[in-house]
Amino acid sequence: MNNSRLTIAQYVDGLASGDRIVLSKAITLAESNLPNDQILAGQLIEQIMPRTGNSIRIGITGVPGVGKSTFIEAFGNTLSDDGKKIAVLTIDPSSQLTKGSILGDKTRMQSLSKNPNVYIRPTASGNILGGIANRTREAMLLCEAAGFDVIIVETVGVGQSEVSVRNMVDFFLLLMLAGAGDELQGIKKGIMEMADAIVITKADGDNIQHATKAQADFQHALHLFPARSSGWSPVVSTSSSIENKGIAEVWKLIKKFQTKTSESGFFEQQRSEQNVQWFKEYFQQLLVLDFQRNEFLQNAMAKLSVSVREKLTSPYSAAQQLLAEYHKLIRES
Amino acid sequence: MNNSRLTIAQYVDGLASGDRIVLSKAITLAESNLPNDQILAGQLIEQIMPRTGNSIRIGITGVPGVGKSTFIEAFGNTLSDDGKKIAVLTIDPSSQLTKGSILGDKTRMQSLSKNPNVYIRPTASGNILGGIANRTREAMLLCEAAGFDVIIVETVGVGQSEVSVRNMVDFFLLLMLAGAGDELQGIKKGIMEMADAIVITKADGDNIQHATKAQADFQHALHLFPARSSGWSPVVSTSSSIENKGIAEVWKLIKKFQTKTSESGFFEQQRSEQNVQWFKEYFQQLLVLDFQRNEFLQNAMAKLSVSVREKLTSPYSAAQQLLAEYHKLIRES
Repeated sequence: MNNSRLTIAQYVDGLASGDRIVLSKAITLAESNLPNDQILAGQLIEQIMPRTGNSIRIGITGVPGVGKSTFIEAFGNTLSDDGKKIAVLTIDPSSQLTKGSILGDKTRMQSLSKNPNVYIRPTASGNILGGIANRTREAMLLCEAAGFDVIIVETVGVGQSEVSVRNMVDFFLLLMLAGAGDELQGIKKGIMEMADAIVITKADGDNIQHATKAQADFQHALHLFPARSSGWSPVVSTSSSIENKGIAEVWKLIKKFQTKTSESGFFEQQRSEQNVQWFKEYFQQLLVLDFQRNEFLQNAMAKLSVSVREKLTSPYSAAQQLLAEYHKLIRES
Repeated sequence: MNNSRLTIAQYVDGLASGDRIVLSKAITLAESNLPNDQILAGQLIEQIMPRTGNSIRIGITGVPGVGKSTFIEAFGNTLSDDGKKIAVLTIDPSSQLTKGSILGDKTRMQSLSKNPNVYIRPTASGNILGGIANRTREAMLLCEAAGFDVIIVETVGVGQSEVSVRNMVDFFLLLMLAGAGDELQGIKKGIMEMADAIVITKADGDNIQHATKAQADFQHALHLFPARSSGWSPVVSTSSSIENKGIAEVWKLIKKFQTKTSESGFFEQQRSEQNVQWFKEYFQQLLVLDFQRNEFLQNAMAKLSVSVREKLTSPYSAAQQLLAEYHKLIRES
C-alpha cells in the first residue's frame, strides 16, 4: 500500500492542477487506517486548507427507494449545464463490513459518471469505535482543493450518518416519496428538522396528484417546527427525475439560500461552527491515533484482551488498567 | 438530576430483587453524560457483572415498515407464554436530535407493554464523537441483573447501529418484507451476512405466495455466502404477526441455536470476543471521560475553539495543540 503514496508536494500540486488520479489517491490516503497515512493526511489537509471553502456543500438524503441516484443524476447534469464542476461523495453505512452492496454500485448514476465535469466517489461511513472516523469531510476538502464548485454528499436516510453529514454541509436536502406513508419512509422529526428543503420525488404520471398532496402536507408539517437560526424557511417542492422537472428549480433554490445566508452572515457562521466541531472530532481521533502508534500500549492492550477473554478481568476493570498504563507512559516519556 | 441518584448498594439490591423502578433509574444513570454519573455507572456494572450473562440476547432488525413492532409484540407474548421474563431495548438512531419520532413511540407495542413479564425501554443510539457512547450494552447487563431471561435489542435496519448491536447479542434476526424489492428494503449484503435467521413478515392473506417466494430467494442468496464460524447455517422462515403464525417457530429456532452453539463452544466464545470488544470501546470512553473531567483541558479546548471560530487556527492544528496540552498536564500531575 505505502509505496503507492505520493509526497505531500505531489499531492498538493496534483490537486492544484485538478488531477483526478491524484485526487482519488489523496482521498484513499485520508481514508486509510494506517497511523502513518493518517499523519500524512493530516499534514496534507493542513496544507490545502487555504485552497478550500470555495464550493457550495450540499447534503442529500432519503430512504432507499426514494430515487436518490436518479435525482442526483438529473441534478448533477443540470449543474454541469450551468458550467459547474461537481463532486459527488456517496456514503454507504454498511460498507464497513463488505465494501459493497448486493446490488452493486456500478450501475448507479451511469450517465453522470460519464460527464467530464463530474467526479463520483464512494466513501466508507467509518466506525469511530474502531478508531476509524468518517473521512467524508476530508474528502470534501480535497475535492475543493481540486477545483470542484459543488460538493454533493449523498447518504442513506436513516440514522446517525445524517447528523454527521448535516454537520459538514451548507445545505441539507431531504428527498421524500409521495404516498409511501411516514412509517415506511422512516423519516423522523429530527431529520425533517435538519432539512433546508424537502423534494417530493417521482412526481410524474399517475403520481403527480399524490406528490402535490404530499408537498402541501410536508409544508404544513414544517410550519409546526420552530423558526431556524439561519432565518431560512425550509421549502417543499416536487420533482421528476425521468422527466427532468423541478430539478433546475432546486438548484435555483440552493443559490438563493447561499445568497440570502451569505448576506445575513449565517453562511460563514455555520461553517465556523462546523470547523469548531471538526476540531473536537479531530482531537478525539488524534487521542486514539496517539495510542495506536504506541507499541507498549498495544502490547498492554493485547495482554489485557487475553485476560478479559479468559474471564480473569472484567472489561471495565481492564479498561481502567489500560488507562493507568497510558498515564504512566506519558509521565515517564 | 443528581439527587435522584441512589447509592451503589441501593441499585444492586434493587436489581437483585427485580425492582423495575430501580432498573429504569440504573439505565438512566448508565445513559447519563455527566462524568460523575459515568463513574458511578461503571462501578455499578462492575458490581453486577457476576449476576449477568444468564439470558439469551437477541438482536432484531429490519427497515421501517417491515413490521418490527408487531413482530416483537407477537414474539414477546409467545416468550411470556413460555414462562420467560423479557426485556425489550429499542434503539432509535435519530433520537439524539429530538428524543422522539414524529409518530410517537407510545402507540407501539401496546399489548406487550401491558404484559407483566415484559419490560420495554427505549435507549438513545448515542454519539461517540460527542463523547457519548451507546449504552445499550450496559442496559442489557442491568436487565440481566434484574432477572430477565430474554433480552431483545431492536434497531432500525440500515447502517451503523446494526453492527454495534450484532457485536453485543448472541442471535441476530433480520426481518424482511416480501416483494418490496431489494432496493426499497435497503438491505445490504453486510447485514444479511450478520443474520442468524431471516424472517419474511406479513405472510398472510394475498401476500402468502410472495412471502414463500421471497423465502426461497433469500435461502438461495444465503447459500452464496461463505460458511459461518459458528457452524450455524442461517435459516429463512415466514411469519404473520396478526395471525400469530411462524412466531413460536422462531423462538424454537433460537433455542436450537443456543443448544447447538453451546455444545460446540461457539456461544461462550462469541461472548468472550464481545467482552474484549467492549473492553476496547470502554477504554476509549474512559479516555474521553478523563479529558472531560479536567477543567484545565476544558478551558484549553474552549480557547482553541474561539481561535478556530475566528480562523486564527485550523481545526487540525488546534487538535494537535490540545493533544500537546493533555500530555503536558499528565506529565506534570
